[in-house]
Amino acid sequence: MRRNKAEPLDFSDDEGWAGGGSARLVTVPERWLARRLVAAVGNPPIAVHLWDGEPLQPVPERPAVRVYIRDRGAFYRLLSHPDLHFGDDYASGRIEVEGDLVQFLLTLERARSADGSSQRSGLLGWIYRPRRNTLAGSQENIHHHYDLGNDFYRLWLDEDMVYTCAYFPDPDADLETAQQAKMEHVCRKLALQPGQRVVEAGCGWGSLARYMAREYGARVRAFNISQEQVAYARERARAEGLADRVEYIQDDYRNVAGEYDAFVSVGMLEHVGTDHYRDLGRAIDRTLAPHGRGLIHSIGRNRPSGPMNPWIERRIFPGAYPPSLGEMMALFEPWAFSVLDVENLRLHYARTLEHWRERYDAHEPEVRSRFGERFLRAWRLYLSGSIAAFLGGNLQLFQVVFARPTNNDLPWTRGHIYREPEPGA
Amino acid sequence: MRRNKAEPLDFSDDEGWAGGGSARLVTVPERWLARRLVAAVGNPPIAVHLWDGEPLQPVPERPAVRVYIRDRGAFYRLLSHPDLHFGDDYASGRIEVEGDLVQFLLTLERARSADGSSQRSGLLGWIYRPRRNTLAGSQENIHHHYDLGNDFYRLWLDEDMVYTCAYFPDPDADLETAQQAKMEHVCRKLALQPGQRVVEAGCGWGSLARYMAREYGARVRAFNISQEQVAYARERARAEGLADRVEYIQDDYRNVAGEYDAFVSVGMLEHVGTDHYRDLGRAIDRTLAPHGRGLIHSIGRNRPSGPMNPWIERRIFPGAYPPSLGEMMALFEPWAFSVLDVENLRLHYARTLEHWRERYDAHEPEVRSRFGERFLRAWRLYLSGSIAAFLGGNLQLFQVVFARPTNNDLPWTRGHIYREPEPGA
Repeated sequence: MRRNKAEPLDFSDDEGWAGGGSARLVTVPERWLARRLVAAVGNPPIAVHLWDGEPLQPVPERPAVRVYIRDRGAFYRLLSHPDLHFGDDYASGRIEVEGDLVQFLLTLERARSADGSSQRSGLLGWIYRPRRNTLAGSQENIHHHYDLGNDFYRLWLDEDMVYTCAYFPDPDADLETAQQAKMEHVCRKLALQPGQRVVEAGCGWGSLARYMAREYGARVRAFNISQEQVAYARERARAEGLADRVEYIQDDYRNVAGEYDAFVSVGMLEHVGTDHYRDLGRAIDRTLAPHGRGLIHSIGRNRPSGPMNPWIERRIFPGAYPPSLGEMMALFEPWAFSVLDVENLRLHYARTLEHWRERYDAHEPEVRSRFGERFLRAWRLYLSGSIAAFLGGNLQLFQVVFARPTNNDLPWTRGHIYREPEPGA
Repeated sequence: MRRNKAEPLDFSDDEGWAGGGSARLVTVPERWLARRLVAAVGNPPIAVHLWDGEPLQPVPERPAVRVYIRDRGAFYRLLSHPDLHFGDDYASGRIEVEGDLVQFLLTLERARSADGSSQRSGLLGWIYRPRRNTLAGSQENIHHHYDLGNDFYRLWLDEDMVYTCAYFPDPDADLETAQQAKMEHVCRKLALQPGQRVVEAGCGWGSLARYMAREYGARVRAFNISQEQVAYARERARAEGLADRVEYIQDDYRNVAGEYDAFVSVGMLEHVGTDHYRDLGRAIDRTLAPHGRGLIHSIGRNRPSGPMNPWIERRIFPGAYPPSLGEMMALFEPWAFSVLDVENLRLHYARTLEHWRERYDAHEPEVRSRFGERFLRAWRLYLSGSIAAFLGGNLQLFQVVFARPTNNDLPWTRGHIYREPEPGA
C-alpha cells in the first residue's frame, strides 16, 4: 500500500468551494476577519485588497507590498490553513503579490518568529502530519520532485546540477564557484585522501561523487532512487572519463553494503523522516571503516517542529522534514558516533537560493511554455519562500562531521579546511 | 536541606567490611571470580596478583601492567562496584598498579567501548545517581573541588590558572601557549569586538575574563560561586590594572542580569546537571542582546549516560555530569537559539591533562606533605583516568557557538578563526 502518494501539481482539489467568488460584495464580518488575519501575522507593513478591490483599512503609509485576495474562496481557505492555501492560491493567481515577493515572505517569517508561533500550522489548529517515508513511499516522494525532468533543473541550477546549499568563500562569489567550493569544503572536512573508498547516500545528479573522483582520486559508490538523476549522473561520469572510479546505484540508502573510508550524504536527510534516522544510522554503522569519517549535510531547524511548510510539503517536497540538531542526534548517539564538527550554513543557503531564483526568473518563458503559469508561479513561490525561511532564521543548514568513538586518527585542528591550498595548485 | 553534601576525601567509609584481609588464602571461587572480572573488562593484557601474591592464571606473556589487589576486602568491593571502588582502593594503596597508569586505564576504557558497556555502572548493576544541583547543592559541590586551596592548583596548572581544556595550535605547543590560544580561539568564535559587554558564567580563576578585557577591551562580568577563586581573580585583575573592565561576582549563574553582547561559559556545564539546563538557557535568553553570540564549552559524551565516573563523581567532582550533544540542546532548543558551530576538542583535553599530570608528578613531594599519600594517589588516578577517558573516546569536549534565530549579523565563514592575525600583531 502506498501511504504517501505524492499529490501532483495540477491543483485539482483547489476548486472545491470557491463558489462565492462571483459575488463581489465583502461583508463587514469578512472585513473584520481579514483584519484579524493580518493582525495574526503581526500586522506587517503591507496593503491588503479583498475581492471587491478595496484596500483593507488601515493601509500602511508606504506599503512594501500589496496583496490582492481575488475571491471569497481563497479568503476562507487562507483563514482555515494559511500555510497550505496561500501557496495554492498564489499559484493559481487567486492571490497576487505586487512588489518584492521575498521581502513579503520574509516579513511573514519574521512576524512568526517574533510571536513564537512557528509551530502553529493554521488559525484553526489543523493538525498536519508529514508523509511517511517507507521504502515505497520514498520512491514516490522523490520521483515527484526529482523526476520533473532534468531539463527543468538545468534552467536554473549551476553547470554541475548541484541542488543543495552552496558554500560561498565570499558572498559575492558566483554560483558555479560556490558549488565547487562546497564540494571542496566537504572533502576537506572528510579529510579525504587519494584512493579512499566513499559511499554517498542520496547523490542527486552525482556532482559530488565526480568531484571526489576527479580531484581526490576517490572511488565512490553513490546511491540515489531517482531514475532520471542516476541516468544523467552515469552519462556524465562516462563523458568525463570517471566511470571507472564512480559507480551510481539506483537504490535506497538503506541497502548500502561494503566498507568505506567515508560516508557522505548531502541534502538527503530532509527526505528521510525522523522515523527512519535509525535506519540511516544503522547503514552508516554497517559500512563505515574503523578509521572512517562521515558527513551529513541537511536543512534543519532550531527546534523540533512540524513539516517544512505544509504547502511545500504537499506540493513541492512530499515527505520533507528538516530536523533540529537534537533530532539529528538519533543518527549518531545509538552507535556512540563522535560528532567532531557542526557548521550552520544558513545564510549560504539563502544566497544559493537567490542565485537560483534569479536564474529561474530569467527563464520564465521556458518554464511557462512547458509547465504552464500555475507551475511557474508555484515554483517562484517555493524558491522565494525558501529564501525568506533561511534569511528569517526559521530554516538552518547543518553540516555534521562524525567518526567512530575510538578513532584518534583525526586532524588536529580545523585549520586544514581553511589553510590548505586548493588541490592541484 | 542539603541533598548533596560532598563526601570528603578522607575515605572514612572504605574500611567497612574489609575484615577478611588478614587471611592470606585465596579460595578457588575467589580465583574464578577474579578471572570473570578480568574477562568482564575484555581480558586486557595485564597481570593480576591477588592478596596471596600469586598471579592470576593465565598471565599474558608480556603484561603491559601488573595490578596488585592486596586484600580480600578490596577484591569484593571491586566486584560489587568496580568504577567506584577501584579509585578508593587505589588511593589507599590496597590496589597497586605497576607500570603506566594511563595506559592501564586506557586499556580498560577501550575494553569498555568495545563491548558497549560504558553505561554499565557495576557488575551487580548498582544503580547510581548523580547529586542534584540545587542552588545550595551547587555551592557545596563547587566548594568541595575548587576551594581545595589555590596553592594546590598552582602546582600543576599554567601560570594563568586555567583549569579547562586548552587549545593546542599544534600538538607540541607548551601548556601556557595552548591556554592562551584557547582563550583567543573562544574570543574569535564569539567574534568579540572592542568595548563589547560580556557575561561569563563560571569563570574559574578568572583568566578568560582578564584575557577578553586585556586583548579585546571587553567589559566583562564574570560569575563564580567559589569564594577562593573569586578572591584570587579579583586580586589578579587589580594587579594587572584591569579592575575597571572586569567585575568578578560571587554568585550563581542563575542570578545573572543585564544585557550582553556575548554570553560565555567555559567548563561550567559539567557541574550544572541536566535538570537545570533550562535554568541556564533561561539565563542566556534573559541576558543575550539581539545581535549577541554565545559559547558553551563543556566536557560531553557521545550518548546520554550515567555520571562522569562514579568514583570521580563521588570523590573528586560531586555533581559532575557530561552531557551528550543531544542533551545539550535542552539549553538551546526551547528558545530556538541557532547553533552556529560545534567543535569537538577531545584530543586537546587529553593533551592538556597530560601536561597537568606531568606537572603534578613533578610536585609529588609538596602534595604528599600537605595532603597525604591517599590524596596524592587519588588525584594521580583522577588525572590519569581523565587522560584515558579522552584518549579512549568515552569523553568529548564540545565548544558550541550560538546566536538568536533572527541574528543575521554573522561572520560569513569560519575562516576568521583561522586566518586573522593575532591581536596586536
